[in-house]
Amino acid sequence: MSPADRIRDHAGQGATTVAAHRARRRLRADRARQLADLLRHQLLAGGFPDGALPHETTLATDYSASRNTVRQALDLLRAEGLVERLPGVGTVVVAQKYPHGLDRLMGLAETLREHGHVTNEVRTVGPAPAPSPVADRLHVPPGTDVLYIERLRRLNGLPLSLDLTYIPLDIGTALLSEDLENTDIFRLLETLTGRHLGHAEISLEAVNADAHSAAVLQAPRGAAVLMLERLTYLADGRPVDLEFIRFRGDRISMSGLLHRSL
Amino acid sequence: MSPADRIRDHAGQGATTVAAHRARRRLRADRARQLADLLRHQLLAGGFPDGALPHETTLATDYSASRNTVRQALDLLRAEGLVERLPGVGTVVVAQKYPHGLDRLMGLAETLREHGHVTNEVRTVGPAPAPSPVADRLHVPPGTDVLYIERLRRLNGLPLSLDLTYIPLDIGTALLSEDLENTDIFRLLETLTGRHLGHAEISLEAVNADAHSAAVLQAPRGAAVLMLERLTYLADGRPVDLEFIRFRGDRISMSGLLHRSL
Repeated sequence: MSPADRIRDHAGQGATTVAAHRARRRLRADRARQLADLLRHQLLAGGFPDGALPHETTLATDYSASRNTVRQALDLLRAEGLVERLPGVGTVVVAQKYPHGLDRLMGLAETLREHGHVTNEVRTVGPAPAPSPVADRLHVPPGTDVLYIERLRRLNGLPLSLDLTYIPLDIGTALLSEDLENTDIFRLLETLTGRHLGHAEISLEAVNADAHSAAVLQAPRGAAVLMLERLTYLADGRPVDLEFIRFRGDRISMSGLLHRSL
Repeated sequence: MSPADRIRDHAGQGATTVAAHRARRRLRADRARQLADLLRHQLLAGGFPDGALPHETTLATDYSASRNTVRQALDLLRAEGLVERLPGVGTVVVAQKYPHGLDRLMGLAETLREHGHVTNEVRTVGPAPAPSPVADRLHVPPGTDVLYIERLRRLNGLPLSLDLTYIPLDIGTALLSEDLENTDIFRLLETLTGRHLGHAEISLEAVNADAHSAAVLQAPRGAAVLMLERLTYLADGRPVDLEFIRFRGDRISMSGLLHRSL
C-alpha cells in the first residue's frame, strides 16, 4: 500500500482526529497542485485551442479527481492569472505565456517573431559612469562612461519585460541615432560593429517584483518576475552588453534542451 | 543631453509642479533598482566574503548615488530576503542563492555537491493512474499506473524545492526499495536501468507560490518560485521521468552559457 493510499485509507475511516482531518486537507491540496501543474502544461502547450477548459465534471473524470480538487486546481491557475471563470461559459484561458528559447542567444524580437511585434519604450538612454562591478564585467576602467539604456518591452502592446542595459561607450554612442524603439540591441550591435555576437553568460532567478517595477510592468505588486542577467560577448571575446531583464512571470516561459554529457 | 540628464535637470530647477516631483521620484526608484541589481550580482557572486555590505556612505560614493537611493536599493534587497540590517553592524548578507547549472542535465545532489548535503523528504510515493497528458509524454497508455513521487528537497536542512515526479511503472517499481531520501532519482534511474540518461526538455517559469506550496517550502505566501518542468529521456530516446519542480526563488539561481550560432 502506498503512503498516499495509506493516508486516504486512514482519512476514510471516518476518524475524527485532527491529524486525519489535516491529512485529508493536505492530500487535497497536494492533488490540486498536481492537477494544476498538468493543466498548466496543456494550457501553455496550446492544448485548449478553442480557449475553453473542459467542464469541471469532465476534468474530474479525466484526472480521476474529486470536483473539490478540480475546483481548487482551477483556483490555483486563476491566482496565477492564467484562466478566468466566466458565468455561463466556464473556465477560459486568459493569459498566454510566450516561449523564450534557452538554446540559442537571441534578441526578444527574434525569439518572438512568430508571436507578434515587439516594441521598446525607451525610458532612459544616455552615458553614465560605470560602477566598478559593471566596469569589471565590460572590461572598461571603473568610472568610465558607458551607455545606459532602460527599456520597457512590449509584445503586441502588452508589457513583457523591463530591461536595464550597459554598453561600452565606443560601441554604444552609435546606438543613440538608431531606432531603439523597433530594433533588438543584439541586431544593432551586430550591424554597427560588423561582427557577430558569440556567446552570453546568463543567470535566471525568480523574484517578487518591487512596487516600482510592478507598476512599470503593469503587474500586481509582488508579482513573480523571471529575472535574467546576461553578459553578452562578441565572437572575438569582447564583452559588449550587460543586461538585467525582468520578465513578467505570467507572460514568459523559457524552454530548451539539456544534455547529460557535454 | 541624455533623457536622464534632462529629467535630472528639469527636476533640479526647483520646479514645484507635480510632474517634476513625479519625475524625481521615478528617477530615484529607477536608480534604486539599478543599484539593487548590481549589488545583487555581487552578493550572489560572493563579492562580500565577510558577509557585510560596505557602509551606506561608501556605497553612495562607489556608485555615485545619493544616500536615499542607496537606502532604497538596500530596502529592495531586504524585501527579497537577501540582506538584513543589524543595528550597530550595518547591512549583512542573510541568504545565499545556490547555482544550479543550465548547461548539463544533472540531479540536484550532483549539481550542488560542493555546496552541501541534499536530503529528500518523501511526502508521497506509490502507483497512480496516469492522466492522459502524463501518459502521452511518458509514452504509456492513458490510465496505466505510473509511479508518482512527491519530495521536499533540502540542502543542509533548508527547504529548496518541492518536486512532483512521474515515472513509468516498469522502471519505477524498483525505485520503491531504493534510498530515495539520500539519492537523486537521476542516479537511481541510471543504476537501475544500466543505461545513461540522454537529454531533457525543460521549461522555466516564475510563479507566485500558492498557500500550500509556500507552507511546504517554509516560504511566505506568494513568494516567487522558479518552476522547472522537465521531461527526461534515456540515451536510447525513451522518456522516463516527468518532473514539476518548484524551487524557492530566494535560494536558487540557474546559470549557463548561450551561443549565438548553433
